[in-house]
Amino acid sequence: MRLGFMGLGRMGSGMASRLLEGHGTLGVYNRNPLAAGMLLEKGAEAVPEPAALGDYDVVFTMLADDRAVRETILASGTLLDSLKPGAVHVSCSTISVSLAAELAERHADHGQVFLSLPVFGRPDAAAAGRLFLVAGGDHAAVERLESLFRLIGQDLWWVGRAPEMANLVKLSGNFLIAATIEAMGEAMALVEKGGVDRHAYLDFLTRTLFTAPVHHNYGKLLADRAVRPAGFAAPLGQKDLGLVQQAAETLSVPMPFAGILRERFLALAARGDKDIDWAAIGLEAARQAAVAGI
Amino acid sequence: MRLGFMGLGRMGSGMASRLLEGHGTLGVYNRNPLAAGMLLEKGAEAVPEPAALGDYDVVFTMLADDRAVRETILASGTLLDSLKPGAVHVSCSTISVSLAAELAERHADHGQVFLSLPVFGRPDAAAAGRLFLVAGGDHAAVERLESLFRLIGQDLWWVGRAPEMANLVKLSGNFLIAATIEAMGEAMALVEKGGVDRHAYLDFLTRTLFTAPVHHNYGKLLADRAVRPAGFAAPLGQKDLGLVQQAAETLSVPMPFAGILRERFLALAARGDKDIDWAAIGLEAARQAAVAGI
Amino acid sequence: MRLGFMGLGRMGSGMASRLLEGHGTLGVYNRNPLAAGMLLEKGAEAVPEPAALGDYDVVFTMLADDRAVRETILASGTLLDSLKPGAVHVSCSTISVSLAAELAERHADHGQVFLSLPVFGRPDAAAAGRLFLVAGGDHAAVERLESLFRLIGQDLWWVGRAPEMANLVKLSGNFLIAATIEAMGEAMALVEKGGVDRHAYLDFLTRTLFTAPVHHNYGKLLADRAVRPAGFAAPLGQKDLGLVQQAAETLSVPMPFAGILRERFLALAARGDKDIDWAAIGLEAARQAAVAGI
Amino acid sequence: MRLGFMGLGRMGSGMASRLLEGHGTLGVYNRNPLAAGMLLEKGAEAVPEPAALGDYDVVFTMLADDRAVRETILASGTLLDSLKPGAVHVSCSTISVSLAAELAERHADHGQVFLSLPVFGRPDAAAAGRLFLVAGGDHAAVERLESLFRLIGQDLWWVGRAPEMANLVKLSGNFLIAATIEAMGEAMALVEKGGVDRHAYLDFLTRTLFTAPVHHNYGKLLADRAVRPAGFAAPLGQKDLGLVQQAAETLSVPMPFAGILRERFLALAARGDKDIDWAAIGLEAARQAAVAGI
Repeated sequence: MRLGFMGLGRMGSGMASRLLEGHGTLGVYNRNPLAAGMLLEKGAEAVPEPAALGDYDVVFTMLADDRAVRETILASGTLLDSLKPGAVHVSCSTISVSLAAELAERHADHGQVFLSLPVFGRPDAAAAGRLFLVAGGDHAAVERLESLFRLIGQDLWWVGRAPEMANLVKLSGNFLIAATIEAMGEAMALVEKGGVDRHAYLDFLTRTLFTAPVHHNYGKLLADRAVRPAGFAAPLGQKDLGLVQQAAETLSVPMPFAGILRERFLALAARGDKDIDWAAIGLEAARQAAVAGI
Repeated sequence: MRLGFMGLGRMGSGMASRLLEGHGTLGVYNRNPLAAGMLLEKGAEAVPEPAALGDYDVVFTMLADDRAVRETILASGTLLDSLKPGAVHVSCSTISVSLAAELAERHADHGQVFLSLPVFGRPDAAAAGRLFLVAGGDHAAVERLESLFRLIGQDLWWVGRAPEMANLVKLSGNFLIAATIEAMGEAMALVEKGGVDRHAYLDFLTRTLFTAPVHHNYGKLLADRAVRPAGFAAPLGQKDLGLVQQAAETLSVPMPFAGILRERFLALAARGDKDIDWAAIGLEAARQAAVAGI
Repeated sequence: MRLGFMGLGRMGSGMASRLLEGHGTLGVYNRNPLAAGMLLEKGAEAVPEPAALGDYDVVFTMLADDRAVRETILASGTLLDSLKPGAVHVSCSTISVSLAAELAERHADHGQVFLSLPVFGRPDAAAAGRLFLVAGGDHAAVERLESLFRLIGQDLWWVGRAPEMANLVKLSGNFLIAATIEAMGEAMALVEKGGVDRHAYLDFLTRTLFTAPVHHNYGKLLADRAVRPAGFAAPLGQKDLGLVQQAAETLSVPMPFAGILRERFLALAARGDKDIDWAAIGLEAARQAAVAGI
Repeated sequence: MRLGFMGLGRMGSGMASRLLEGHGTLGVYNRNPLAAGMLLEKGAEAVPEPAALGDYDVVFTMLADDRAVRETILASGTLLDSLKPGAVHVSCSTISVSLAAELAERHADHGQVFLSLPVFGRPDAAAAGRLFLVAGGDHAAVERLESLFRLIGQDLWWVGRAPEMANLVKLSGNFLIAATIEAMGEAMALVEKGGVDRHAYLDFLTRTLFTAPVHHNYGKLLADRAVRPAGFAAPLGQKDLGLVQQAAETLSVPMPFAGILRERFLALAARGDKDIDWAAIGLEAARQAAVAGI
């Protein structure tokens, strides 16, 4: 089985490394070929253009956004046109539910298999094969490739036959993270303005009912007010929240918390702050409350 | 040291039991004397009225709300008037920040010591001495009584010299729980309407980033739609959220998530549903989205 | 018929003047007696304390808030205790619905008649007898006094037998004004950031669909950014909005716009800005959007 | 000067009639040619396809949405490709700000003049030439065509050199209408649940501070609960609100009221109610409050 990979960003390069090591061979393409350097040294094959990935049996893609997917997969003369019938496209990108549905339909029209496999985790988890994976698409196809998926992920959930269901789950997860940030931010602004030390408060929270990684990680960023440099930049969070709202619109699901989060991201954006972690939305409550030092 | 206790509801009776067992003696008062029965059998002394608790050195109170505190502690001829100078009142009730501040002031005027010690946990945790305790008030006084506090709580955080700071932290914690319920409810409505099984979804959430007790406990209630009978009734949750907003008003802290939660509780209340768990606010998103079966 | 009046603030003094001129006699009481000076010169009788208003047949009150009403009307030895059976108390103050209901009940217990008559209009309208009046209470009693009411108001609506219904209508009107301010503020921030001149925009609005006094008056304040000095100070608007939310809580009516307005007032208050017109909530959108010059 | 018109819907046919009568000649195109019948009887020339409008000097378009504009104006071989240099395209459609900006750029690239001229008013106002017009684009061009514009509108505002500024103003106006509906709906739910008759309440509102057409027209729909058949259907309102939020996103303007309105439209849509007037969002508060009869 010939394996290909497109999209060697911070996440993709780690994932590709794991696949190369585990599977032995891997064809790699990146818009900026420099990013492929280390993988080529490790034995990966250089693929000159998206269409050339059509020679592979299973192609993973990990791209930045809907636009990149349209340009390198759906555009005339790219992956969709070159992939052989029966070949599999595994899309790991965080893209819109509607685009995932469109990919599913277009690949099916070409007799190709399309799976959505969005991931949870940061670049270090990607490099260590410790991502969490959510799979959508034909169940048998997912099972057939599961050993490959296990090279990049520590755990895997299949959530439904329609590939876009996995994207919906991915986006909902990012919504839940953002909502946790905002909720902790409001609570922290409240107690801090009431005189409570916010690090002591976080210690209390994370040793009682709020012990999840999402509480530890983002609670610390908020208590430290450590939102620079960005681990995950606010504009990316805003983009994902926009995709959540887009999906909610398509499905007619009122989500008032999502509406509040949107306002937070817009206020951040209005101040022109792009190089800031998305956790910064959690400092807006303190800012509006005129908590000292914000 | 003579120990007294007032308020033998579901939480209070468990806490009083622990104090009686650990300390050896305990005077107990409850408005409805029947509730004291089991404690008296175990050797507690019956106290006939709130004022009679004035003979004790340390009096714990665990009452339903601000009104009960006013009637049994602040009203003329009750605890405040009878407690001796130097005696300690440890208030465990979930009450308003402003009332806690008033208690602090009034007790100080009488030369008495006032500590706020609100608790986190359900009745079973109270009975097992496994509550989480947040203490506010004079630090030395808290330290002096810490061994008593350890009889009812598995862990203790002192958050500041002003007793009401502990109440603020308690209320903020309930806000965070409610916000978690709402956020999970919105996410679950979204993915379910998109075809994803909500139990599978919860399994994914609670094994990745959302592993806290608050996620497990309330996520299960939501996925099971098991909001009857009420573990913690919606009107109580609404009352606490009201206290959060009251504190936020006093401190001038805008909390938009709290505003959304308020609307949820009002919609529940408008349907006349009182015997329902406060987790039901997390089903409102599914209701508004017309998710099947709600 | 002997007429009395309590509360000679900016609104009350104008109303009292109209009553004095129209009716010929008027007993007046004000906490600060200096405020009564001009009325006494015009022939009003000085009333030394609230209880002394008990000698009058019809007593109008126009007080600042719930607290003032409690202190001068409900407190032991004040108006409630002195008013004769069959005498009428006409309450024009903007107070809570629950206090109005309590007044109704207490006056009824004393065999007195209680009417709520909240007013719409600014001090100049009060002085000119051009207020809008909303009446609640016994219909026959309202009709009997209508000629008096016409001395202070250009128009009158009776909205129900329960006096507090008039207070509810009054508060709802203030909510609608605040909501109009916020809506225009958001729209203005949007178009101004898009390059449109905000005065030209207001001209367009107020000559098409948005021609009401509320649009003209508050639109001009927003376009001019003329929120100092305060015509109606933000803390008073915040108080009234709080009374709206309190009524909505009692009646179980979710009002999400009211929730947003609350956040606006809190953000204003957090900046410590008290001497600012409540129209300033309508500049918050521009502030959050980082519109130039805000 | 040869005049053309595309888009003979309920609004467009009235506007085209006015232009035909006032100017004497008019070429008309509609996707469904039947709609052109009456205009042809009155002397209009039938235009067989969008590209054939390229023979005209000034072409008005009044189309349903962005998609229709893309298909008949921007698509290869349609109006953009056929219009002569110096000819004018006057776009009256309610479209996105971004599409208006794109039209401006594309027309400029072809040496054509592009003006945005969105309109306010219902079909009867269109037929009577009583619309309100907002113009964006080159000021001299607007002035040159003003006598034509006066055939369809009773008043005209030029809001800026960039055509899309007019679209922004148009969308902001629809936002303000929707916000007025929601605000009145919340207020009406509140007072009605408090026992006040909603028609009496509306009478009070519309004779005091809330006298604008937007209050009269939508207040009556709400008080009568007369949301069927749709005058302006909820899905169209939802679309416009979406365009407002899209513009607010592009310009980074937080608009919390718009966020609330979005939730309202989604709740309506979730119930599958498409043939309902957008005023129905104003009944959601009463529905959530369980006001009788909703």
